[in-house]
Amino acid sequence: MEQIPYKIYLRENEIPTAWYNVRADMPTKPAPLLNPGTGKPMTAEELSGVFCSELVKQELNDTDRFIPIPDAIRDFYRMYRPSPLVRAYCLEEKLQTPAKIYYKFEGNNTSGSHKLNSAIAQAYYAKEQGLKGVTTETGAGQWGTALSMACSYFGLDCRVYMVKVSYEQKPFRREVMRTYGATVTPSPSDTTEIGRQIRAAFPDTNGSLGCAISEAVEDAVSHPGYRYVLGSVLNQVLLHQSVIGLETKAALDRYGVVPDIIIGCAGGGSNLGGLIAPFMGEKLRGERNYRIVAVEPASCPSFTRGRFAYDFCDTGKVCPLAKMYTLGSGFMPAPNHAGGLRYHGMSAVLSELYNEGMMEAVTAKQTDVFKAAEQFARVEGILPAPESAHAIKVAIDEAMRCKETGEEKTIVFGLTGTGYFDLVAYEKFHNGEMTDYIPTDEELNKSLATLPVV
Amino acid sequence: MEQIPYKIYLRENEIPTAWYNVRADMPTKPAPLLNPGTGKPMTAEELSGVFCSELVKQELNDTDRFIPIPDAIRDFYRMYRPSPLVRAYCLEEKLQTPAKIYYKFEGNNTSGSHKLNSAIAQAYYAKEQGLKGVTTETGAGQWGTALSMACSYFGLDCRVYMVKVSYEQKPFRREVMRTYGATVTPSPSDTTEIGRQIRAAFPDTNGSLGCAISEAVEDAVSHPGYRYVLGSVLNQVLLHQSVIGLETKAALDRYGVVPDIIIGCAGGGSNLGGLIAPFMGEKLRGERNYRIVAVEPASCPSFTRGRFAYDFCDTGKVCPLAKMYTLGSGFMPAPNHAGGLRYHGMSAVLSELYNEGMMEAVTAKQTDVFKAAEQFARVEGILPAPESAHAIKVAIDEAMRCKETGEEKTIVFGLTGTGYFDLVAYEKFHNGEMTDYIPTDEELNKSLATLPVV
Repeated sequence: MEQIPYKIYLRENEIPTAWYNVRADMPTKPAPLLNPGTGKPMTAEELSGVFCSELVKQELNDTDRFIPIPDAIRDFYRMYRPSPLVRAYCLEEKLQTPAKIYYKFEGNNTSGSHKLNSAIAQAYYAKEQGLKGVTTETGAGQWGTALSMACSYFGLDCRVYMVKVSYEQKPFRREVMRTYGATVTPSPSDTTEIGRQIRAAFPDTNGSLGCAISEAVEDAVSHPGYRYVLGSVLNQVLLHQSVIGLETKAALDRYGVVPDIIIGCAGGGSNLGGLIAPFMGEKLRGERNYRIVAVEPASCPSFTRGRFAYDFCDTGKVCPLAKMYTLGSGFMPAPNHAGGLRYHGMSAVLSELYNEGMMEAVTAKQTDVFKAAEQFARVEGILPAPESAHAIKVAIDEAMRCKETGEEKTIVFGLTGTGYFDLVAYEKFHNGEMTDYIPTDEELNKSLATLPVV
Repeated sequence: MEQIPYKIYLRENEIPTAWYNVRADMPTKPAPLLNPGTGKPMTAEELSGVFCSELVKQELNDTDRFIPIPDAIRDFYRMYRPSPLVRAYCLEEKLQTPAKIYYKFEGNNTSGSHKLNSAIAQAYYAKEQGLKGVTTETGAGQWGTALSMACSYFGLDCRVYMVKVSYEQKPFRREVMRTYGATVTPSPSDTTEIGRQIRAAFPDTNGSLGCAISEAVEDAVSHPGYRYVLGSVLNQVLLHQSVIGLETKAALDRYGVVPDIIIGCAGGGSNLGGLIAPFMGEKLRGERNYRIVAVEPASCPSFTRGRFAYDFCDTGKVCPLAKMYTLGSGFMPAPNHAGGLRYHGMSAVLSELYNEGMMEAVTAKQTDVFKAAEQFARVEGILPAPESAHAIKVAIDEAMRCKETGEEKTIVFGLTGTGYFDLVAYEKFHNGEMTDYIPTDEELNKSLATLPVV
């Protein structure tokens, strides 16, 4: 057989023509979103006030396994896709492991992460619907950057509410968004009613993601021609991210490689859900078996220490209720926690799959994650985002286990993005100032006590 | 014919097996380096005290057109090469130009620029020679980052003297270097004799590239097992960078495309010299004609307003003399000048070629460059480094000229890197705080008056 190259690139005409909707393969569908007022499932009509119509259809579609990708989106994908599937020869050599390690690298675009895969889809449907623009929130800024790029491409107005402390401390991300013509507003702001209320009540607040979501939603629903968009958690986002998994599978198939273990970091679940989609489909249909592992931060352990229950998607409690593994919408990860993966809940799709035992979850401690990140950067030449490094950590652990047992397992993990905007955290790590934080049972019980009664 | 894809990727086995030494094609060779003490050409022996032996050979080799690339270097290249040659369909569409625009993108590696192509070669030869480590200086940090990555790969010690003001104001680049295990010292430091002298004389100094070079050279020559390495200007560096041009030519050849105009930004000349190498070879041999255009900042115009003369390569006047287009080694670009391309001189190879009329040179003003950068980012999805954006600016100008005349010219330019660490400059541009600076004749005459008499 042809030797497997360092980087497997598919051809541009091999970019998937349809997204993979794993819900079609699920015998038990993810539980529907509930209207927090009535406690009843959200209808398409109710959702259409906030989301684009076509995206509402995708959100509610539990039956079609393949959903065609419009040509305009595939054209945009051609700017940075297919992304490489990399054989980690250098890492294998360094670890002296018999394991074969592959990673799907989604960081080779200016937004620096996989987020762009869904941002361009959401922008496209907004444009098709004749909207003027979209609103969103961003914390660290990966999602806001991706959405700014996507809106710029389609000539849509893009309004990003950025958590105030990030706006001030991460000016670089802000400037990338401005380069793409987005309006970036520190949240809480005085441009929304909820923002003004919060500023009046807490004049010194640094802002929070929950507050930024509330402002973005208010902005969208109070301006004709605007809708709100979200970068993770939702079914539609996992659907769009399935291009990651489809390309990964096509690249492996070309060389007849079948993975034993598939690993992804998990915050809201968008990357992991996308990476595993077609593999999980095979597993659900009983065609193949794979070990599928979600890695979450020890400081924000939704899967491993949360509860599978209906909860609010946002801290401000303005959004619908979702049934998911959650730490409670009042849960705040420790301030020392670097990077993303700080969401209190988890995608409903992944939550259902985890609950059925179709996948595993493990946690990783922050300093261990940065150790793995540095080890990886030194041999593979890519500076990983801290989020992505959670997957690296566990991939290395699995590879070292193979070294002990002598098994030649094939490990595939998702390298979601680059760490160019996370160097403050790297600096803390280099200076020995980084600490680990694991919430106590008492803390978790307190935030879980805020779960709504449905 | 097969439609040309957005991104032309060569296969990994198409990575060049030899560098292209354009000096072999030059009827008049670049003038030799001179010993500043004796005024005579530097011998291999003299150069070997500072540089690795194999690199000295490459520096002095004016005759071999192809110099084999060792397998270990090609293996490293496989981590991020071949780099894509991108057809700028989106930019063409935006400009509504009949021109066909291509760019060779060198930013898809963690060092963020083409500098890695030479860094890995220089690290390899240092390792082969049994050295312990290398020293260098870095300003903005691109070169230092590339060298750190290269040294980490071969297990070499890497000591980077970083201009103090950059060390303090650009902590992110510093942290990338530390991630790769480099020792980064703010210059002037108290670890060298020259550093201590400068600190005693100017306690409040912010440092300069000239001073950092002097410290790096002193460190290398005073520690057994160490050599000094440099990221631009030298013949050997242009040689290593010829992988850019060779890959570009191979990618164009695959589709039968012949460029009319080749454009590159020019600071010390490493990127431009590499990009044009095989094309210039054809031109020198009379096989084809190409317009070749160097773009330099209006604030540091070595080609267009400098003098072709022997000059010191460094401000500290410790290095050999080179015959080059120079503004005088005392020239300092305006402090408002963002990014690189601030070197007072130009590669001896390119200087000779320019002097013979084999290439053109134009200047671009800083604000025009950032306008072009933003325009490019919005349609092509890549945030360019300010250096690279000089080439974008002139490529757009040429494409707009084609629009006027209706000519379907093929334009190729070098996109040397990404702008993730240049967002302070982007911010100034967005805020309308960026200004242009063009040195007066009086200022240039003053610095040109410092040219040595040879």
